[in-house]
Amino acid sequence: MLEHFFRPTSVAVVGASRSPGKVGHDTLKNLIDAGFDGPIYPVNPKADEVLGLACYPDLSSVGKPVDLCIVVLPAKLVLGIIDQCADVGCQSVIVISAGFQEVGEEGARLQSELTERCRKLGIRCIGPNCLGVISPATKLNASFSATMPPAGNVSFFSQSGAVGTAVLDVFAGEHVGISRFISYGNRADVDETDLIQALGEDPDTDVILGYVESISDGARFMDVASKVTKKKPVVILKSGRTAAGARAASSHTGSLAGADAAYEAAFKQCGVVRARSVTTFFDFALAFSRQGAPKGNSVAIVTNAGGPGILSTDAVETSSLKMATLTEATQASLASALPSSANVHNPVDVIGDAKADRYKTAIEAAIADENVDAVLVILTPQTSTEVDATAEVIGELASGTRKPVLASFMGQLSTQKGLDILDGKSVPNYIHPERAVTALDAMYRFYKWTQSPPEAVPDFEFDQAAIKAVLAESASAGSRALGERHARRLLEACGFPLARSVLAEDEDAAARAAAEIGYPVVMKISSDDILHKSDAGGVKVGLRDERQVRASFAEIISNARSYRRDAAIDGVLVQQMALGGTEVIVGMKRDAQFGPLIMFGLGGIYVEVLKDVSFRVAPLSAGVVREMIDEVQSSRILKGFRGQPPGDLNALVDAIQRVSQLSVQWPQITECDINPLKVFASGQGLMALDVRFALDLQT
Amino acid sequence: MLEHFFRPTSVAVVGASRSPGKVGHDTLKNLIDAGFDGPIYPVNPKADEVLGLACYPDLSSVGKPVDLCIVVLPAKLVLGIIDQCADVGCQSVIVISAGFQEVGEEGARLQSELTERCRKLGIRCIGPNCLGVISPATKLNASFSATMPPAGNVSFFSQSGAVGTAVLDVFAGEHVGISRFISYGNRADVDETDLIQALGEDPDTDVILGYVESISDGARFMDVASKVTKKKPVVILKSGRTAAGARAASSHTGSLAGADAAYEAAFKQCGVVRARSVTTFFDFALAFSRQGAPKGNSVAIVTNAGGPGILSTDAVETSSLKMATLTEATQASLASALPSSANVHNPVDVIGDAKADRYKTAIEAAIADENVDAVLVILTPQTSTEVDATAEVIGELASGTRKPVLASFMGQLSTQKGLDILDGKSVPNYIHPERAVTALDAMYRFYKWTQSPPEAVPDFEFDQAAIKAVLAESASAGSRALGERHARRLLEACGFPLARSVLAEDEDAAARAAAEIGYPVVMKISSDDILHKSDAGGVKVGLRDERQVRASFAEIISNARSYRRDAAIDGVLVQQMALGGTEVIVGMKRDAQFGPLIMFGLGGIYVEVLKDVSFRVAPLSAGVVREMIDEVQSSRILKGFRGQPPGDLNALVDAIQRVSQLSVQWPQITECDINPLKVFASGQGLMALDVRFALDLQT
Repeated sequence: MLEHFFRPTSVAVVGASRSPGKVGHDTLKNLIDAGFDGPIYPVNPKADEVLGLACYPDLSSVGKPVDLCIVVLPAKLVLGIIDQCADVGCQSVIVISAGFQEVGEEGARLQSELTERCRKLGIRCIGPNCLGVISPATKLNASFSATMPPAGNVSFFSQSGAVGTAVLDVFAGEHVGISRFISYGNRADVDETDLIQALGEDPDTDVILGYVESISDGARFMDVASKVTKKKPVVILKSGRTAAGARAASSHTGSLAGADAAYEAAFKQCGVVRARSVTTFFDFALAFSRQGAPKGNSVAIVTNAGGPGILSTDAVETSSLKMATLTEATQASLASALPSSANVHNPVDVIGDAKADRYKTAIEAAIADENVDAVLVILTPQTSTEVDATAEVIGELASGTRKPVLASFMGQLSTQKGLDILDGKSVPNYIHPERAVTALDAMYRFYKWTQSPPEAVPDFEFDQAAIKAVLAESASAGSRALGERHARRLLEACGFPLARSVLAEDEDAAARAAAEIGYPVVMKISSDDILHKSDAGGVKVGLRDERQVRASFAEIISNARSYRRDAAIDGVLVQQMALGGTEVIVGMKRDAQFGPLIMFGLGGIYVEVLKDVSFRVAPLSAGVVREMIDEVQSSRILKGFRGQPPGDLNALVDAIQRVSQLSVQWPQITECDINPLKVFASGQGLMALDVRFALDLQT
Repeated sequence: MLEHFFRPTSVAVVGASRSPGKVGHDTLKNLIDAGFDGPIYPVNPKADEVLGLACYPDLSSVGKPVDLCIVVLPAKLVLGIIDQCADVGCQSVIVISAGFQEVGEEGARLQSELTERCRKLGIRCIGPNCLGVISPATKLNASFSATMPPAGNVSFFSQSGAVGTAVLDVFAGEHVGISRFISYGNRADVDETDLIQALGEDPDTDVILGYVESISDGARFMDVASKVTKKKPVVILKSGRTAAGARAASSHTGSLAGADAAYEAAFKQCGVVRARSVTTFFDFALAFSRQGAPKGNSVAIVTNAGGPGILSTDAVETSSLKMATLTEATQASLASALPSSANVHNPVDVIGDAKADRYKTAIEAAIADENVDAVLVILTPQTSTEVDATAEVIGELASGTRKPVLASFMGQLSTQKGLDILDGKSVPNYIHPERAVTALDAMYRFYKWTQSPPEAVPDFEFDQAAIKAVLAESASAGSRALGERHARRLLEACGFPLARSVLAEDEDAAARAAAEIGYPVVMKISSDDILHKSDAGGVKVGLRDERQVRASFAEIISNARSYRRDAAIDGVLVQQMALGGTEVIVGMKRDAQFGPLIMFGLGGIYVEVLKDVSFRVAPLSAGVVREMIDEVQSSRILKGFRGQPPGDLNALVDAIQRVSQLSVQWPQITECDINPLKVFASGQGLMALDVRFALDLQT
């Protein structure tokens, strides 16, 4: 897939120019300078020759197969070239030209045409408005960037050309070798998902890195990425984390699901390692490209200074890693080999005067220890320190084991040669030890992901006819939200247990209903026009007798009237008051990119003030739901807190999966809040006390 | 203060050796090589001459004034040299020698003697077990480290010699100039507080950096640091953040106050900028040493690439900074000067083909804008980018303004010369823009601190006689904890409102008490032997009539008996049940370093599960207490949440300050939990429902 972009047999440059500094000139020059070993065909009707190569007036006059075509003509000429490509049988095109979506409406229209034309003609297109493709292994620089990085096993795609060149520049400086670099710009055709898939299949790529500003097709991205990440690490830096944008949302779930919640959830669910800053992006690339992932989370640290050992231990303890407990045997062998003042527990302190041999003893012992999954070697350049020899030792030992070995030589001037030695032996080095730990943590999480078995999503039997009827009724009423009665019917159709509830249209009916249900009761305004009932003074709880019920009826109606004069009021719901249990909220908001985004949190304050919630993209397996429950800090309350019985987690998992299924099956539901949902003690199930749905009438 | 260590008039090296590689040789050589321009006196009875200098058998035979003495003899000889120093009138000694506290009991004893001797003789001593002192400005290398960093305005003290050399090595590589470097090792005499004070007064020091593993005298540290930080930034990297250590604690406060809570609180309260990793330590040093702090938190970003602009905006929005809103005038002038596709809002995108002149226009406009307090310039090396010329422009503009200007040139190979230019113009550069933002954030927080007015601590009138009586009674009973009755008396003596409460010794008494107090009531076991009453089944709430009270009495007594058979039971407390209000916890734990550490959090789950609490070191001004309340996320509940009335924050601030004063005045109280403390609506005060105190009988 996409291999004609990475190892083409021949390349044409349409718009090749004789003027240095012009994109059409520099791109051709880059191609020639990189030493591409197939034929190169400059195309320009106004030139006979460019940069020493025979030039053709158009693609069809080349007369030989063109495998890859690079277009550097003004935007309005690009569509014509696509047609020419189809005529000569060229199916891979890089459009470097700008002037499309990024310049406004007219450009966006042109880009749509480009997409359509390529799809119709079976042509794959990278760009427009991009730098192009660089593939050091195949000596290909099909780009407008002169930087030719060293060949290696890391592939990097970037939506932004500027970030692309910046990263290439740093990678070259840090000797991180590149397999493929793809600047894919406005992604008229080839997008990040195509690239992940292609690089997943690319034998020259071990690590996939991406810088993205958005993802164009969330569902396909998740499908593809979750397969590729089982084989190779995919590290993504995504910008725009906090730029939530002020969106109108009618549900808690909606208001809590910022712009980033869906990306965050999706990346987790498909095993993508997310880098949260440019620094960690580099750090992760370095680690993944040079060492295999640890097969467990126990880390041994070997250091010649106490302080950095403590700093790293701190970093380990706040990650998914843990400090390895060295075996008795290892401790004994270290004790006999190291000076008496050395620390033979983890972190192993070989003491400030350690030379290379002492490091060797300690690292060997750590690697050999069955309790150790990874080793971090810290070196501070002290007077007796043998920087270069120690680097040699680390390199040698790292080559002889499958356990990852990372280094942190804390220095700059005096450690330079040592760093080159580590570099030559593929040992990643981090000037600051905490960064090595963060990288190792990412590697371990990647390993855990590759080992996680696939999980099934259940198929619940819903009363689909009832759901259809409720939605149709609302649609015909033109309502963008389901009132409580409809919402309850819909939830019942999904198999949710609900509190007993009777709609009372007057005081007498309310009193009768309460007597029938049994005291205490809850009373709530019933109106499709009032969604936030509490705000409207439309809820009364713990009503213990008829007098209270009657008084509350009048008060609720009067409050509702003064909250919204024109509200259509059905009456007041008299509801069973569920005693005990823990209130949670289960919600859904449909994300434009990723589809139904399911939210879980504990009720009331936890959601609204502490924002202690978690999100995942539907559909959801039981394992993913349990993960999402665990992610919520306050859910410890559900697991038996201070002598309280643990909550019915199985029922809760089931309930969240039902909301997930409903959201997947009925796209016209755009938002949903089941709030509160009472979780009773283990084995005693749940009860939904209130629920709201928002609808999209267009769907 | 300590100026003889930084600019001595003469230096003696006691233990000077002729053998290269020996500490006594290398230290002398470092001193000579650095070009110290006063007389140097090697002292060694076995040599006539060392490294070309006349050698003396002992200090007294030098015959001229010795201003600073460096000791490199074995530990057991050091005390004798201190005496000699006193004899010749030398009052400043660096003890490089190891073999003291770090080698165990015997060494610790020797070190105590060293401390005592120095104090008695009026000698200031740095070390032992240290590298020594380096002062490039005065051409002094009085250390065992050969690295002589360039002179500059940053001073750095390090408890660890290894971390010291590592940092010096990196600083030298990054061209960060040093004023003083002090490796102070085991701090037998001079400690971190002395150093902060001395560097605070040192005219050659603009920025103070420290690496510490612990602080020896918390109260003095806070006193000194809070003054110095009003003039100069003090940045501290402290290791051992998570190594909480398993401590037995009888209170919530105790169990929540990990090893780090006191440091964290103390640093905040005395304006110390805390670096949380080695990376930020460097980043902060760079920013503070090269630019002044911003006088507001509005940042303008100028970039030639959209992606990094978004990444930086994200970083700004998650810090104490905010994105500046450019004035209409600035936007208009940018719009007329920049190409039409440029973004004239903040972040200002000058577009990928921007040359130096366009950067100049944009940066000038940003600096001139009254809404802008600081400017971050991002550059990605693209084809048309003029890296060097842009660096010149930035340097020039930065020199002409008092607003801080930071750069992020995102590259390595192709940006090297540009970085040197920025360096020469004192513009800090960060390869990754997020790190520039983090540094700017630290600078702004420093600025805010320097502007914060000093605040008074109130002096409440306590019934000291009653407090004394309660504590004396408990002490004579040999109890390490106050039972509820005593605890209530103590709290009342501090002016706390308590729930009405009657101790009942039998069922009848309980029923009478409940009738008198009024229903509903709470009943609790009263026993000095049962601290966690709920765990013991010793609490019943919401008892509504005599029948329930009588039944509960029997049940509570029986639960308590089965919880702890030998518990001395006073009876059962019948207590007024406070309706409404929000439960909070106010606690105290005495920290070994810093003294009383006051905790605040919301009651129950918030404290125990979410650990949503904050700490400060007593005594506390009202401003600090409000800060501590704000720091607790869930305290939004107290500020009027979802239509609930706001809580009585004034009364809460007062209460926390009362706990603070009690803790300061009565050191025998080691821990305290007022939990729950009910906070009623604004103006309606508080009510303490339960309280526990732990005592130290030794105090």
